[in-house]
Amino acid sequence: MADDFDVIVIGAGPAGENVVDRAVRGGLTAAIVEERLAGGECSYWACVPSKALLRPIDLAGEVSRVPGLSLGPIDVAAVLAHRDEAVSHYDDAGQVRWVESVPAEFVRGRGRLDGPRRVRVTTADGGERVLTARQAVVLATGTSAAIPPVPGLPEAAPWTSHEVTAAKVVPERLAVLGGGVVACEMAQAMHGLGARQTTVLVRGDGLLARMEPFAGELLARSFADAGIDVRTNIGVTRVERPEPGGKVTVHLSEGPPLEADELLVATGRRPSTRDLGLGTVGLADGKYVEVDDSMRATGVPDGWLYAVGDANGRALLTHMGKYQARICGDVIAARARGDELPAMRDLAGGYGAPQVVFTDPQICAVGRTEAVAREDGFRVRVVDYDMGGVSGAYLLGDGYRGQARAVVDEDRKVLLGVTFAGPGAAELLHAATIAVTAEVPLDRLWHAVPSFPTVSEVWLRLLEAYGL
Amino acid sequence: MADDFDVIVIGAGPAGENVVDRAVRGGLTAAIVEERLAGGECSYWACVPSKALLRPIDLAGEVSRVPGLSLGPIDVAAVLAHRDEAVSHYDDAGQVRWVESVPAEFVRGRGRLDGPRRVRVTTADGGERVLTARQAVVLATGTSAAIPPVPGLPEAAPWTSHEVTAAKVVPERLAVLGGGVVACEMAQAMHGLGARQTTVLVRGDGLLARMEPFAGELLARSFADAGIDVRTNIGVTRVERPEPGGKVTVHLSEGPPLEADELLVATGRRPSTRDLGLGTVGLADGKYVEVDDSMRATGVPDGWLYAVGDANGRALLTHMGKYQARICGDVIAARARGDELPAMRDLAGGYGAPQVVFTDPQICAVGRTEAVAREDGFRVRVVDYDMGGVSGAYLLGDGYRGQARAVVDEDRKVLLGVTFAGPGAAELLHAATIAVTAEVPLDRLWHAVPSFPTVSEVWLRLLEAYGL
Repeated sequence: MADDFDVIVIGAGPAGENVVDRAVRGGLTAAIVEERLAGGECSYWACVPSKALLRPIDLAGEVSRVPGLSLGPIDVAAVLAHRDEAVSHYDDAGQVRWVESVPAEFVRGRGRLDGPRRVRVTTADGGERVLTARQAVVLATGTSAAIPPVPGLPEAAPWTSHEVTAAKVVPERLAVLGGGVVACEMAQAMHGLGARQTTVLVRGDGLLARMEPFAGELLARSFADAGIDVRTNIGVTRVERPEPGGKVTVHLSEGPPLEADELLVATGRRPSTRDLGLGTVGLADGKYVEVDDSMRATGVPDGWLYAVGDANGRALLTHMGKYQARICGDVIAARARGDELPAMRDLAGGYGAPQVVFTDPQICAVGRTEAVAREDGFRVRVVDYDMGGVSGAYLLGDGYRGQARAVVDEDRKVLLGVTFAGPGAAELLHAATIAVTAEVPLDRLWHAVPSFPTVSEVWLRLLEAYGL
Repeated sequence: MADDFDVIVIGAGPAGENVVDRAVRGGLTAAIVEERLAGGECSYWACVPSKALLRPIDLAGEVSRVPGLSLGPIDVAAVLAHRDEAVSHYDDAGQVRWVESVPAEFVRGRGRLDGPRRVRVTTADGGERVLTARQAVVLATGTSAAIPPVPGLPEAAPWTSHEVTAAKVVPERLAVLGGGVVACEMAQAMHGLGARQTTVLVRGDGLLARMEPFAGELLARSFADAGIDVRTNIGVTRVERPEPGGKVTVHLSEGPPLEADELLVATGRRPSTRDLGLGTVGLADGKYVEVDDSMRATGVPDGWLYAVGDANGRALLTHMGKYQARICGDVIAARARGDELPAMRDLAGGYGAPQVVFTDPQICAVGRTEAVAREDGFRVRVVDYDMGGVSGAYLLGDGYRGQARAVVDEDRKVLLGVTFAGPGAAELLHAATIAVTAEVPLDRLWHAVPSFPTVSEVWLRLLEAYGL
């Protein structure tokens, strides 16, 4: 088996897989090294299982708003079984076959940099293999959950996104640390699947702090209606769990301690770049790998090292990782044939990555929030519209609650950012992503007529509210 | 009460109402004349009630594909009651109040042209009132169902879109004449609400003949699965209904006659421009009123007559009528102050109007189909993608069936048309409407990253399939 490849990718998540795909399409040979499962976090312990868990809850919410329909109780065992199917029962044979079909070589083991253009792979049985790259090595090792330095927390072996998405049993009482996407989605999932007491502990002022404030407010209202207890401006001072897997006591910065059967930590991510051999090429261990817009690591001589996806810290989102990977694979192939392919650069990241939160209401946004746009020095006008006032929303269900915001660059009359929050809003986002990324002028958007009676008619209402 | 206005609109459907709104916003005075209900077909006998009837069926379909959920039987009485709410119990007081709040004068009665700039209104009690327009008269009288010249058909008093959307009882056996949007939506609604034998009789080769062929094929497959009988290439030769409201016998061009409890005719529309006084201004009675891109009737001296919405025959869709109305109201106001407002023209219509069919699967399209694009002389490349292959679709439900098509102008590398067919596809359309209308180049669309795992990721797949 040859150990020389044009490209070696460490990490076979969606980003790594896309690098390989594009590089091979560009005429190169490639190997991809993965210690765990080909397919990565997303396929087994993040986007896919979380959405499999959330879908029935989301749909149950929709049904509850439509007169004439009545739903029986959710069959939790069936939902968990379907989640297991969605993650292929944690078996990556299909993904490995896909890699081989690219074709690329799949190498199972822990990959570490070992000086320039060299990757040393340690296999599960302790064997070693050294691979060398003629063109490039690409790091696509992702992130893992960060555990904040709270006394007793590591010893309590809390759940992270990994364990909660793979849950075999729904805890009766769940405490959630964090107020971001994972915290919100998983609080909703577990509560919807039967947790009787779900408490979300947020250090800051509210949920989803990086989004427009109304998004977190709408979600908090929905959580309150569902009986999910959200506590803001609260700190966790200490955690006790005397027996492994037993009852957890969470001591708080105010009020009595909280007792729970399980504790989910969802307070952020850290790059999985420790023990990756970064020191052998002059980079710092355990940090995000800084890259330029072509995904090439800065500060590495000869420009043979790249990083895509979470590993570079640009945007911790699967779709952005895949996007970066397409750029990266294309660029490596182009450079191998002496072409710079200057159009192939991360353009989307600069506008502000699109993101969907699959809660009820669904929340999605692209581009800049009002606050970020102002910080960035734009002359901004904000237009808000109550989505419940759109006929299409009324027809989706009684008591539809939703909100839309457009952030307009008044100098160029283009959209800097758009946020939608409402039931089923996820698929509204791509229109905004196109409008923001393509910088479609408002007076051209005015001629893009939304169909009646879709919820997308909120586009018309936003433009009318702007004065068009 | 003054009888002179800047603008007089005949017909208070969505199009007429929007003309008034924009004209008044532009500083003009306006009156709107309506013989029936303010709000028009759309609000009472078309889009709104049909979607109110279809929503529970659509949602029941979604639920049936999600493991862990189980739905009880649809409570038809509750659905019909909700439909009645959605149409405000056929009471237009709210709409009249809205007109008055514009402010504009609402005039109840039959309006007819009576020479240039003059409208004679006959009220229900036989009274008359003559209104004169300083700037413009706008026709917004819509269309009504066309009844094809089949012997016995008029005498059988068949249902049209009016009666079926207002149904108080679901017929046990329903025969549907036609294969277009109304026929398909209402066949699905009545069957989903309990019709035991629903037969769709189509003169042509398939359903939804104006859309991409795969759309009608997917729908026919779904209808077959639901037990709706679709018969293509079949003609109706004679209809018998001896007793009013009784059993109907539909004689066919082949095979035995079909017996049904109700017959729905949905074979097209004709303009409601008869007995409208068109002859008094030199136009033909009962025809669509031909207009230019500013909605001004061609062939009328002094340019004071306009027509919007179905009345001009450009695009028989509520949202396009409203769009035309915004243009028309703005243009009239601009011309009144001596401005041409040249940017304010029907641009969207030229690309091909967006449209959504709210069946299961939902079908939506904007721009040109492949066939139309080729007829129009474009150098076309077609890209198809099986939407069931998108992760986001898989996560929506088991056995998701859907299809997407992009029609690319190979000379300019922009989209000429896009069609999506799949459960819940309606909100995917607006992204395509923006891309087509704004002529966003494909290599820019490539940077508009769809969020994972949404169904919108089909955009990425289409671009990849194209070779980007």
